[in-house]
Amino acid sequence: VTSPSSFPAEATVVAVPDLQRFVVDCLASSGVERDQGEIVAEALLASDLRGIDSHGVARLRRYVIGTRTGKIDPRRNIRVVRESPATALVDAGNGLGQPAARFAMELAMAKAETVGVGMVAVQHTNHFGIAGYYATLPLAKGLLGFATSNASPQVTPTHGAQPMFGTNPIGIGLPCGDGDDYVLDMSTSVVPRGKLERLRREGAAVEGHWAIDAEGNPITELDSLISGLIARSGLSILPLGGLGEANCGHKGFGLGLLVDLLCGPLTGSSWGRHVYGEKGADLGQWFAAVRVDCFRPLEEFQRDARQLLAEIRAAKKAPGQLRIYIPGEKEAEAEAQRSAAGIPLLPPVVADLEALGQEVGVPFESVLAGAGA
Amino acid sequence: VTSPSSFPAEATVVAVPDLQRFVVDCLASSGVERDQGEIVAEALLASDLRGIDSHGVARLRRYVIGTRTGKIDPRRNIRVVRESPATALVDAGNGLGQPAARFAMELAMAKAETVGVGMVAVQHTNHFGIAGYYATLPLAKGLLGFATSNASPQVTPTHGAQPMFGTNPIGIGLPCGDGDDYVLDMSTSVVPRGKLERLRREGAAVEGHWAIDAEGNPITELDSLISGLIARSGLSILPLGGLGEANCGHKGFGLGLLVDLLCGPLTGSSWGRHVYGEKGADLGQWFAAVRVDCFRPLEEFQRDARQLLAEIRAAKKAPGQLRIYIPGEKEAEAEAQRSAAGIPLLPPVVADLEALGQEVGVPFESVLAGAGA
Repeated sequence: VTSPSSFPAEATVVAVPDLQRFVVDCLASSGVERDQGEIVAEALLASDLRGIDSHGVARLRRYVIGTRTGKIDPRRNIRVVRESPATALVDAGNGLGQPAARFAMELAMAKAETVGVGMVAVQHTNHFGIAGYYATLPLAKGLLGFATSNASPQVTPTHGAQPMFGTNPIGIGLPCGDGDDYVLDMSTSVVPRGKLERLRREGAAVEGHWAIDAEGNPITELDSLISGLIARSGLSILPLGGLGEANCGHKGFGLGLLVDLLCGPLTGSSWGRHVYGEKGADLGQWFAAVRVDCFRPLEEFQRDARQLLAEIRAAKKAPGQLRIYIPGEKEAEAEAQRSAAGIPLLPPVVADLEALGQEVGVPFESVLAGAGA
Repeated sequence: VTSPSSFPAEATVVAVPDLQRFVVDCLASSGVERDQGEIVAEALLASDLRGIDSHGVARLRRYVIGTRTGKIDPRRNIRVVRESPATALVDAGNGLGQPAARFAMELAMAKAETVGVGMVAVQHTNHFGIAGYYATLPLAKGLLGFATSNASPQVTPTHGAQPMFGTNPIGIGLPCGDGDDYVLDMSTSVVPRGKLERLRREGAAVEGHWAIDAEGNPITELDSLISGLIARSGLSILPLGGLGEANCGHKGFGLGLLVDLLCGPLTGSSWGRHVYGEKGADLGQWFAAVRVDCFRPLEEFQRDARQLLAEIRAAKKAPGQLRIYIPGEKEAEAEAQRSAAGIPLLPPVVADLEALGQEVGVPFESVLAGAGA
């Protein structure tokens, strides 16, 4: 297979099944059962396939070392705490986030099939990867999907100058069909952490008001922004809409705080600045599935939805713009390309996975043996 | 009652019951039954009470003239089209938006009481006022509330230069209790139309990249922006996050388009640029209620939620800022003040209501007779 020209020249292109097996083997070395590891691998690879490199195997280390050191319980501790026809609360028991999230979404889907809607919250859980992965699980069954999670505190409230809650992502999928599913997968901050790291690799600059320091002054350098976030030195990412209320930063703040209220107080998990604190990650998450045909016959919805998307794409373009992308469209294109060609890993990611493999006794060389460039 | 100093000096302060009666009488002159008119009045007054003057009685004319000319059917045509334990689709039959919306939210609340969640969509309806009014209806019963609507096309997709969908508001309420309910009531555009009109009255200026003309150039004058929107001259408001992708305008675009997919294709109503087109308004709306105690005992949720809100308020402030407002807090303060002192109407609103009263034979003088200044 020839590497597509859109892949970075310095990337090593690896085969999906090889990478998948490496993930499962690494987790198995911590005592994670293979069926649980396969769920983690599928969620991570879904992110790499969709071109969201920041949330794919580049983050494998945290799950492997987490389960190895016991910060994350390697065992499957998932149990249903409370249940009604349309709802459930699930306790993840500080296990891996992905299997608990997958369990919760499948329970929500089963409830939706029965009564029209399923909403399932998860308490005491860990990082689940991208919200968009879970939001897309119900689509093949004609169900709308929704997923959200709180996250480590990095975002300031409007008029504040202190990180008080996370970039709190929201994922929503609609089954428009015919390869044109609508998938909105967004953090509620003005810029997600992963984008910052990508921009730094690309040598780009801060383009707007994205973050402030502990004194409330705008930060204009990517290096100091990223290192300050990592060091938790008191600087904050701004909510979607930016600084103050001029461009409605209070709306992004409202969305981020909403996610924290749903994931913290409403699940019984940690919230805001206590997330990744004394109790560990202790994240809360939230999943919903809704039957489209409870409202409209699926084929009628899909016909009209695709017509709406086609009209949006055909709108007049701004100067210098050739194309309007529907949410999820860039990711679907990446997925088609990478499913065929393999996943491009940048040199720092290859180095990190090689080192990780050595630490846990799972050689990464077997993945590289099948790699292109 | 003395007029609070925060009221504009030129305002006429009228009593809530007098204004309410005027609204019902005006609608009755079009053949709207009084119990339906009372729902419209309550929804409009809820907006005035919460300080959102753009969506209160300042908009009465459109409902009264609409029902008078038959653009809006003055009769109650509400019927349930399709139903499951957790869902329903309601046809408003081109009647007034407020009674259909209220019916839908009450149906959602009843379903939530039974199975944990209720989701009710409304097709073929009209403007319902503020989303926040409906989102707060479930709170007193310990239910989470959600409401959304599509709207007349005024917003461009990211990388576009054409108004393709509305400012598509979202309202979400959480019953945190003790006067501290969380109420997020936001348009998905970078600035709502109502704010533009308020800023013009205050003599303010455009503060950021809020809108572009039909050639894609930023508009910097409020006068040309507002008159262009009214004339539908091809200019567009930008989505939340602003121009392009630098500050994640594609997220606001994604949220606005999501609302349109839910309210148009998923209800069977008009979408995008067809709203307020050949079929009339033909709006779609969406309501949900969720039982908090299906996830956590209400008092535990409320204790933790209020603790989270208290921590947010106590965060370090940005330079020059004295206070962090929780979504809904400014509106709750306005409501407390206006419930006691009355509603301040600006001279253009008084003049419009006087003229409207004369047109339909309902004297506004009876309201002014009880007014302060």
